[in-house]
Amino acid sequence: MWTNNSITSHLHLKWPIIQAPMAGGATTPALVAAVSEAGGLGTLGAAYMSPEQIREAIKSIRALTDKPFGVNLFIPEDFDADQQIAEGVAQAMNDVRDRLGIPHNPQVTQFTEPFAEQMAVVLEEVPAVFSFTFGVLDHRLLAELKQRGITVIGTATTVREAIALEASGVDMIAAQGSEAGGHRGSFLPDSPSNMIGTMALVPQIVDRVKIPVIAAGGIMDGRGIAAALALGAQAAQLGTAFLTCKESGAHALHKKAILETREESIVMTRAFSGKWARGIQNEFMTTLAPLDHELPTYPVQNALTKDIRAAAGKQQQRAYMSMWAGQAAPLSQEISASELVEKLAAETTRICSNLGQ
Amino acid sequence: MWTNNSITSHLHLKWPIIQAPMAGGATTPALVAAVSEAGGLGTLGAAYMSPEQIREAIKSIRALTDKPFGVNLFIPEDFDADQQIAEGVAQAMNDVRDRLGIPHNPQVTQFTEPFAEQMAVVLEEVPAVFSFTFGVLDHRLLAELKQRGITVIGTATTVREAIALEASGVDMIAAQGSEAGGHRGSFLPDSPSNMIGTMALVPQIVDRVKIPVIAAGGIMDGRGIAAALALGAQAAQLGTAFLTCKESGAHALHKKAILETREESIVMTRAFSGKWARGIQNEFMTTLAPLDHELPTYPVQNALTKDIRAAAGKQQQRAYMSMWAGQAAPLSQEISASELVEKLAAETTRICSNLGQ
Repeated sequence: MWTNNSITSHLHLKWPIIQAPMAGGATTPALVAAVSEAGGLGTLGAAYMSPEQIREAIKSIRALTDKPFGVNLFIPEDFDADQQIAEGVAQAMNDVRDRLGIPHNPQVTQFTEPFAEQMAVVLEEVPAVFSFTFGVLDHRLLAELKQRGITVIGTATTVREAIALEASGVDMIAAQGSEAGGHRGSFLPDSPSNMIGTMALVPQIVDRVKIPVIAAGGIMDGRGIAAALALGAQAAQLGTAFLTCKESGAHALHKKAILETREESIVMTRAFSGKWARGIQNEFMTTLAPLDHELPTYPVQNALTKDIRAAAGKQQQRAYMSMWAGQAAPLSQEISASELVEKLAAETTRICSNLGQ
Repeated sequence: MWTNNSITSHLHLKWPIIQAPMAGGATTPALVAAVSEAGGLGTLGAAYMSPEQIREAIKSIRALTDKPFGVNLFIPEDFDADQQIAEGVAQAMNDVRDRLGIPHNPQVTQFTEPFAEQMAVVLEEVPAVFSFTFGVLDHRLLAELKQRGITVIGTATTVREAIALEASGVDMIAAQGSEAGGHRGSFLPDSPSNMIGTMALVPQIVDRVKIPVIAAGGIMDGRGIAAALALGAQAAQLGTAFLTCKESGAHALHKKAILETREESIVMTRAFSGKWARGIQNEFMTTLAPLDHELPTYPVQNALTKDIRAAAGKQQQRAYMSMWAGQAAPLSQEISASELVEKLAAETTRICSNLGQ
């Protein structure tokens, strides 16, 4: 049976289906709980949340389900908070601010949430799963997580990253193919050649590590889940598919854009955060694309666009919102999370059974 | 049974496994015949062959097998044969010619083989399958192929291209994901957003056309074939996996490079042909990468690098050879084509059976 493997048994899941962590508000407690309650693994994308917000969200999830769920954070990176912003970039962003009627060059006082305090909440609250992106976790933190029985998942976009993560001691690897929406999880020297498709990436990682692999990127339905399992993954992680769920906290215009987009309009950009991410093309992305090589790196650009993204959301202006989406977003549907999980499971069962006949 | 579908029954194949057309000498009659003889579909990559060479190759294949096989050609595109070559590009290529000890600025008398005469041979020889790349086939030629009972396969890299091909009247569509080695088959306005991974591309095309879909890109073993079928494709097309076969006519250094490469070294380039293609990074690609926006388009750049590629091959200099490879090339093996087909079939049977249990 496609549902029986080391991930489902280790995490006590009915289905090897993981709702991907998506920072930025989409992964409401209602969404996370609904996925876990339906037999998958919900994940709180907590990277942009304050420690207190994370604690509250975990409590809210627990009020809705006693099933296992995950919490995801970003590994902090060194950055220069005082870097000079190129004049062209500042000008382009202020032009956008004019269109939104918000002040120029806002003062940024905080570039990221405090990681140590975020981790402290995770260690106190003890979710079943902790997953992380953008690096390798400090070995002392990893030891503390494991001491508490928390299953740890790292994110890899290349074989080299998967090997580094396994060596660090994580329990499972999320192999993120180039189709994936949102930020690339890449953490070793980045290049366009890191855009490796799920079909090529998953079997190569499976062959090179001993720990279980989770396939991510371009998976939207039972076909994708069955394909992920065929490739040797023991679970499939879906982000975009859950973004349009009723329980998702994604902006209504973001949901609408996903439901209406086509695969060619879903492109890579560094415009919103300074880090490569995939989303539905809009004016903000095309405006900053020619300035790409001058953009500040993450998290500086991310902090600098915060006011723009917030104002765009409030003013219902999708031209300036970050609308992350994977390359299979046109397969999305308006549905509740529990219905989606049930549908995914039924489709996967049918496909696996047909293949095995 | 995973082997029973409209492609295997229509083409009388034992396995829904297609050896991809690869122009440039890899698809020897021995390779094509061995694949077809083993129950897959061999394909002659005939685009760079003269009409007479195509006729000879087809005769050679037929001397080795009476099973169905395919012939592939490139749809011709308009181009400016007299375009000015940017000075930097000419200089960089002449520097390479110096290193190979061959004359500067060779006179190019022919940019492509004559397509009408190539097609005439196909129409006379009547292979079971004709596949094409880089466009939509003229409707009169399509009608003539169909009149002769030849099954016609077009190549798509987006949903839009698949819809255009179906409307043109082809029998099947090869959906080429971004993982694929060699040239992108894109023919509608090209952009980086056309780099859609196989996992995302195949189900979207399957949902939007009524004719059978063949999955291509990143498929190297039974895991990939089973995944392709799970995604809704009715056959899998493998190129790189067959390049390292004993019967393949790929240069020994190209084979060696594939067997030793890693996924991160397999990048996109326009350096060799003026058209985007994926191969193992080497000095020629890195030298011309900064001049990318000044390169002549296909087929002009292809013709301009012909002397360089030929000399590099003769002199065993992999720095200047085009070494096409897909993103899963590290899964390649030295094996005979018949053994590979048998192995692929056995692996796929095992995986499908496990999934269905």
